[in-house]
Amino acid sequence: MRNSPVRLLARLAKALLLTPGLAAVSGAAAQTNTVEQWDIYTISMRGPTNGNPFLDVRLSAAFSDGSKTVEAPGFYDGGGIYRVRFMPDKPGAWRYETRANRWPLTKRTGSFTVTPAKGDDHGPVRVHGTYHFAYADGTPFYPFGTTCYNWLQAPDDWQKQTLKTLAASPFNKLRFLVFPQDVDFKGAVPPTLFPFEGKPRSDWDYARFNPAFFRHLEKRVGQLRDLGIQADVILFNPYGKSWGFDTMDRATDGRYVRYLVARLSAYRNVWWSLANEYDFLRTKTTADWDRYFQMVQRADPYHHLRSVHNGYFIYDNSHPWVTHASIQNGSAVEDPGRAALYRDVWRKPVVFDEVGYEGDEPFRWGDLTAQQMVHRIWCGIVAGTYVGHGESYLNANDTWLSYGGVLRGQSPPRIAFLRKILESVPGCGLDPIDKYHNTNMGGTPGEYYLLYFGHQKPTAWPFALPREGLSNGMQFHVDVIDTWGMTVTPVKDLFIVKRKDQYTFEDQAGRTVALPGRAYMALRIRYAGGPKPRPVTIPIAP
Amino acid sequence: MRNSPVRLLARLAKALLLTPGLAAVSGAAAQTNTVEQWDIYTISMRGPTNGNPFLDVRLSAAFSDGSKTVEAPGFYDGGGIYRVRFMPDKPGAWRYETRANRWPLTKRTGSFTVTPAKGDDHGPVRVHGTYHFAYADGTPFYPFGTTCYNWLQAPDDWQKQTLKTLAASPFNKLRFLVFPQDVDFKGAVPPTLFPFEGKPRSDWDYARFNPAFFRHLEKRVGQLRDLGIQADVILFNPYGKSWGFDTMDRATDGRYVRYLVARLSAYRNVWWSLANEYDFLRTKTTADWDRYFQMVQRADPYHHLRSVHNGYFIYDNSHPWVTHASIQNGSAVEDPGRAALYRDVWRKPVVFDEVGYEGDEPFRWGDLTAQQMVHRIWCGIVAGTYVGHGESYLNANDTWLSYGGVLRGQSPPRIAFLRKILESVPGCGLDPIDKYHNTNMGGTPGEYYLLYFGHQKPTAWPFALPREGLSNGMQFHVDVIDTWGMTVTPVKDLFIVKRKDQYTFEDQAGRTVALPGRAYMALRIRYAGGPKPRPVTIPIAP
Repeated sequence: MRNSPVRLLARLAKALLLTPGLAAVSGAAAQTNTVEQWDIYTISMRGPTNGNPFLDVRLSAAFSDGSKTVEAPGFYDGGGIYRVRFMPDKPGAWRYETRANRWPLTKRTGSFTVTPAKGDDHGPVRVHGTYHFAYADGTPFYPFGTTCYNWLQAPDDWQKQTLKTLAASPFNKLRFLVFPQDVDFKGAVPPTLFPFEGKPRSDWDYARFNPAFFRHLEKRVGQLRDLGIQADVILFNPYGKSWGFDTMDRATDGRYVRYLVARLSAYRNVWWSLANEYDFLRTKTTADWDRYFQMVQRADPYHHLRSVHNGYFIYDNSHPWVTHASIQNGSAVEDPGRAALYRDVWRKPVVFDEVGYEGDEPFRWGDLTAQQMVHRIWCGIVAGTYVGHGESYLNANDTWLSYGGVLRGQSPPRIAFLRKILESVPGCGLDPIDKYHNTNMGGTPGEYYLLYFGHQKPTAWPFALPREGLSNGMQFHVDVIDTWGMTVTPVKDLFIVKRKDQYTFEDQAGRTVALPGRAYMALRIRYAGGPKPRPVTIPIAP
Repeated sequence: MRNSPVRLLARLAKALLLTPGLAAVSGAAAQTNTVEQWDIYTISMRGPTNGNPFLDVRLSAAFSDGSKTVEAPGFYDGGGIYRVRFMPDKPGAWRYETRANRWPLTKRTGSFTVTPAKGDDHGPVRVHGTYHFAYADGTPFYPFGTTCYNWLQAPDDWQKQTLKTLAASPFNKLRFLVFPQDVDFKGAVPPTLFPFEGKPRSDWDYARFNPAFFRHLEKRVGQLRDLGIQADVILFNPYGKSWGFDTMDRATDGRYVRYLVARLSAYRNVWWSLANEYDFLRTKTTADWDRYFQMVQRADPYHHLRSVHNGYFIYDNSHPWVTHASIQNGSAVEDPGRAALYRDVWRKPVVFDEVGYEGDEPFRWGDLTAQQMVHRIWCGIVAGTYVGHGESYLNANDTWLSYGGVLRGQSPPRIAFLRKILESVPGCGLDPIDKYHNTNMGGTPGEYYLLYFGHQKPTAWPFALPREGLSNGMQFHVDVIDTWGMTVTPVKDLFIVKRKDQYTFEDQAGRTVALPGRAYMALRIRYAGGPKPRPVTIPIAP
């Protein structure tokens, strides 16, 4: 997913002008007869308006291409309109039949054609290679996330500014809240859209959703998709205390989870983040979180990625319904030797979604220098994990962290630089090569090594690599990388290895790589010829 | 558990002379009519010798003090003798009734008196305070373990030497294998005792245990108990390939687990370590380990501590049948900021049972200097975890690691020194105070702080503490600790704190603590007067 300026402009135009995936409404069943693979096919139907359609009507549709059947959940969209959205994962002819407990909505059938994915449509992101991610079509996905918790609460122009900023940024994943937070956007009016009917602050009709609220959310998720940005949608949060959505009862929580999943799951760029700082929602128990996770797992026919973000207590990420760890812990990415530890615990991808913010907050969670921010991301990356960016400088209206808008920090260009480096690694990501003894190195034995020196200021590095994958006579190119200066300087010498001892190979002429004595330097070492890399036996889990 | 020389001698004499807990055998039911709390009461009975008593006879006994009933498993001890061992946890009058599928062994009843624990008998060790351990009577237990995998295979005199060495050492937990390893003890004959009837190496009768093998094991476990040493009994291991005990089938594994638990569980100092490097036992799956864990959990009426030690893959320690993590990872204790991470993952005690060995091995797992060994233990301790010692210098016959015998390293006296410091902390252990920002500090806010500088060589430390528990005017004593030199030097000044900023209190006169500019220094800071420590709100898990 490389962002050339021209493509970015085209994408941005698409994102701002179109509301994709919403077929025209009619009283009969489906309308559009072709849809692209991993795009959204929508069945829209008129149905009953009496009683409470949100509670009374159960609707789904079974979609089949002849070899498999996918049951997609439907939802009431207000004004007598019911919809079922479907994300087909294979080109070809598909049919469907609706199922409902109301006769006008049941046994409706139709057929449509799915055309192959094209352009930047690679499908939803999945776990790949135990610790990494790839799109459904196999294209590696390296998450470089950022967070704008309440960008959907900002005035419309400001939301458009956020999309513009994202389009020109290195970020391909955005974390944000569904439920509004207490408002402190500078000079802005309180939110006008709420997820439920009724009146703020406490007179909600929790039995009736407000479709306009969710349509707005969907529009933004679709725009992020068209920018190639994953929407890390945060279902619950402990912050909006004045609205009361953090303390709804279990039945309401459950209806909300199912309604949200029914509406959003056909968007291929959705990731489910069950909560931010889940353990700070004091009325919910671990058993509640287990259940909400399983609800999402059952309700989402596409199995989008699922995680939950911690406050003080880390959720038990070993549960099968957790696809990857989403961690808040800045200390754990101060050193690659720390970051790597979580990988072995869960044998799942580890995404450090919150590690502090580049900014000028008086609080230590938001006073990182840009150098510290970039350092933490590099530490996580060479350890084979992923690290999210955050920024909390006060901009025109508030911070990027809260309402999006514009970025003021110095870390984003460095993150773009790192992303470019990572996108050129072989395979689908970095893994530790000699994890207990060379913790600052990731890559593929014999092929590719990325070493990061962090706060150290070496003036030379004696060429030496762990034995895995190596044999005498193999040749390597070395690039010196200035992670802050954003330069890649090839070393002229070609290094040729010979065995030094039972753990290490060194350059046969004993050469060293010169380094400038500054912090934040890295090395990239790539196989350049000689005997082929030896296959490395990877232990198999019991 | 402080070891004065006189008490040590007394204990050692007891350990070497007595074989405790084995009441005389008779054809009738129980013999001894009093037993100490947490000691062993044994029912011994004659029973059938026909068929295969190990397979054919099921035996247990229900013990009751009138308010609760404990079902203890029985076992066949050979020669027509059956036994049930019981560890009473309360003083008073107890009764029992046996249950068996053979009439001479069933419905036997009896009664006995349990006298209160005395001396060094504090009961079995339990998890205490989430991350720590305490004996059943509430006395804190700080594990300072070591490992002699095959000491039970050494000649008898050498085993006695191991007990002598342990008695004079700081170690209060010993890891060792039940199943023998391939023999390489220098100048020694191969083991004569095996757990099964039949002939080495492959002609075992897995349906018949060899009671003499287990009686020897029990004698040593009892001797360790009398020295105040926990026996971390390793049920399976991947090393004894020439004997075949690593590849027994599931039914045999299960019988072995139940037989071992029936024989050993009444020993109060037993910890169950399901395996060493469990993932290197290639014929067993994760489901097997889950099942063996649950078998132990069901069969052991006293719920002794249960863990499993990893090779490459860490077991899922979040399972409810795991009481604490037993980790092999030296890198994770190179820095307290690493060691602390595992605590939050499992919210259980973390014992780094293998972090490398002080020694002169040509392999990097066994070439730590004594300084590195002691450094790793300090790193783990200030992070609120526990770290085991290991030694691999070649001694008279082999290494301490393999066959015990004598210790040659320089780390044990430093471990004794650290143990003494830890035994004087308030509460039941150290916990991080400001875990993401002051990772080298553990203690109790406002009361007690232990700071470790590791490889750093500071010449001064500006007095500053995280805000938790503090208020202006509180007074503190400081001791400068040389962890290698084993000195504690009180600082004459009394430090008086005032708020510096929202995160920190400093000395009101801005004083610093002078340090000698050497590595491996630590500070102990203790409340000395002024306003009382403020209670700290500890978050409650969801």
